[in-house]
Amino acid sequence: MALVVQKYGGTSVGSIERIEQVAARIVRSCRQGHRVIAVVSAMSGETNRLLGLGRQMNARPNEREMDALVATGEQVSASLLAIALSGMQQPARSLVGHQARILTDGVHAKARISSIDQQHINAVLDEGCVPVVAGFQGIDARGNITTLGRGGTDTTAVAVAAAMQADVCEIYTDVDGVYTTDPNICRHARKIARISYEEMLELASLGAKVLQIRSVELAMKYNVPVHVRSSFCEDEGTMVVQEDASLESVWVSGVALDRNEAKITLRAVPDEPGRVALLFERLAEQAISVDMIIQNISQEGFTDLTFTVTQDDVLRARELTEQVGQEMNATEVSIDDGVAKVSIVGVGMRNHAGVAARMFRLLADEGINVDAISTSEIKVSCLIRTKYAELAVRTLHNGFGLDKASVPPAAHA
Amino acid sequence: MALVVQKYGGTSVGSIERIEQVAARIVRSCRQGHRVIAVVSAMSGETNRLLGLGRQMNARPNEREMDALVATGEQVSASLLAIALSGMQQPARSLVGHQARILTDGVHAKARISSIDQQHINAVLDEGCVPVVAGFQGIDARGNITTLGRGGTDTTAVAVAAAMQADVCEIYTDVDGVYTTDPNICRHARKIARISYEEMLELASLGAKVLQIRSVELAMKYNVPVHVRSSFCEDEGTMVVQEDASLESVWVSGVALDRNEAKITLRAVPDEPGRVALLFERLAEQAISVDMIIQNISQEGFTDLTFTVTQDDVLRARELTEQVGQEMNATEVSIDDGVAKVSIVGVGMRNHAGVAARMFRLLADEGINVDAISTSEIKVSCLIRTKYAELAVRTLHNGFGLDKASVPPAAHA
Repeated sequence: MALVVQKYGGTSVGSIERIEQVAARIVRSCRQGHRVIAVVSAMSGETNRLLGLGRQMNARPNEREMDALVATGEQVSASLLAIALSGMQQPARSLVGHQARILTDGVHAKARISSIDQQHINAVLDEGCVPVVAGFQGIDARGNITTLGRGGTDTTAVAVAAAMQADVCEIYTDVDGVYTTDPNICRHARKIARISYEEMLELASLGAKVLQIRSVELAMKYNVPVHVRSSFCEDEGTMVVQEDASLESVWVSGVALDRNEAKITLRAVPDEPGRVALLFERLAEQAISVDMIIQNISQEGFTDLTFTVTQDDVLRARELTEQVGQEMNATEVSIDDGVAKVSIVGVGMRNHAGVAARMFRLLADEGINVDAISTSEIKVSCLIRTKYAELAVRTLHNGFGLDKASVPPAAHA
Repeated sequence: MALVVQKYGGTSVGSIERIEQVAARIVRSCRQGHRVIAVVSAMSGETNRLLGLGRQMNARPNEREMDALVATGEQVSASLLAIALSGMQQPARSLVGHQARILTDGVHAKARISSIDQQHINAVLDEGCVPVVAGFQGIDARGNITTLGRGGTDTTAVAVAAAMQADVCEIYTDVDGVYTTDPNICRHARKIARISYEEMLELASLGAKVLQIRSVELAMKYNVPVHVRSSFCEDEGTMVVQEDASLESVWVSGVALDRNEAKITLRAVPDEPGRVALLFERLAEQAISVDMIIQNISQEGFTDLTFTVTQDDVLRARELTEQVGQEMNATEVSIDDGVAKVSIVGVGMRNHAGVAARMFRLLADEGINVDAISTSEIKVSCLIRTKYAELAVRTLHNGFGLDKASVPPAAHA
């Protein structure tokens, strides 16, 4: 008998019929003797519908009110699931932010959970009820409704699992696990049985949309085992767990593709100390994350500066860059959104030299030029032209032997 | 400069454009120097859509969860209105039940407000913000979301006006006031300029759908002047106020029609003390309101008992009546929903004899048979066949001179 948090995404609760299927699955878990806490997203399409209403009202709607508006999506699906469960003789109780006491900071649309009151959820469990927690939302210290950003229900689920010290957090979604790469791009992609938090974090931040980054960070921090699986079948999915020796034997666990970046270049920047720092300070003040940065060798006291941001931020980033550019008499700002970032991820890289070199060689052999490179301990990313994106993914996937699970990766080095 | 509560119904906030019009009206009030508290219903159709979702999930959905589900309707319109106001440079803040601290009892779907925390709303006003309160809902002592029943937003508005000691509670709706009768039935119906709480109460309870009964009771209890008016024009509507001498000079203020009753008859009830009481106790336990009661003269120790309930309650009422009938060996329960109740209302009746007699005469002259009668100090109601409903309304409206405002009603006696 385990305490299990089950998170169901928008597609899994996308219709009355699907909510019934979810309820049936929860009832099966309960009958197996488990105690279940459900965490739900809004029905698919609902969050966008609500955002659309708000933006129809005003192109730049008040953020506090947008949060209050979109938070209704999860309240609806949580009550519907509780109704379905009650109809199956399984008592259940929906809980929104102020009821589950999911406290967050006050940053609307991007709030972070600061605490969850386990007593309240425990009280519901002790009455033999399934708590059905509305994901994606909480309240701040003043009782304002806040939301956690896209994919925030994953974060709610992991945070609830951490607060309740659950045995596992199951993330039910419309895919059946985490893959070595996007199966739509590479038909040899395989489902990964076990992956470390660190790898998942890199994959999530690189655009593998299975789990929200923040949820993986939380899971890692509180050591919550996360099981990513499909709500449409009974197959085991992917376990996201702490790194161990078995995971380290693999050089590369996955290949990720991110088409959501854009490259900004500021030309002829006076090459003086502090100039570049000023620009990135301004961007940071506006909460714009910069990913890759390339600075050319200085020529006659001037240099070109290139960096990448997500496409959501590109207009604001250009505006700021132009302002800073004017202050420092830099002549020209250009945007290039014809770029894609392809990355290889694996905790095994720590102990194996030459992984980056092999990546560049594989790309070069296919005639793919690399615009920029960034690395972490367990990741190497290359910025390339968008037109080569799929080719690069397939080349790296095959080149690092990800299509052949049973063969030790060292054999391909 | 006054403190004004403005309630906007579902039609008034039925689209993005209409919410913008409501926001513009609120801004005008603010610019005139008034402090405004808005109270809103769900966008028209939304409550039914949500109820439909819940009932699709389960024919007898869990009541706590239905409340959580439908309460989202007002949360959506409240945030949209706050977004619209903010867009017009009028700071505003939406408040749902737990934020405005609208405490209710725990009777789901029919909760009654027990208190409203005026400090919280005052704090919002003091910041120069328009509080936009989600109507129809509150929370109980345990933090569960409750709803107040159909038309509950009127009650929220009046309760907020009472708690805040507002100068007036304006009810904006899709009609421009309270009429002497339904203008769709009688084209000579006139708008009433002033009406007493008592009369409004009788009219509301008789099916004039302008104001929810509970809201009128609250307004009377706390002496809140209520102004019923149209959100689509600037005309003065109907003031609902304390009774005064000018109102008493009118015999009959209005004619109401209620098609929402059904007649239940229990045949051959042993005519013994306590038998009938038992039935009505059981109905009361289930919160089923009985309106008219007719008991025939006892024949051979048996009697037939007839009573009316609203059509919403008729199935539950029949079930209970059959149970009690079996216990007392009563033989047969029948339902008749081909009935309508037509009523005349007026505080002037208290001081004028013969009003009921004149009503029966007017109906009889048109060949309309009366099945049952009930009276109060300021009301006479007759149960008739549905097919005569419109004829009865027109007959009484003309017969009591309601089509001729300027002529003293005594002239028609």
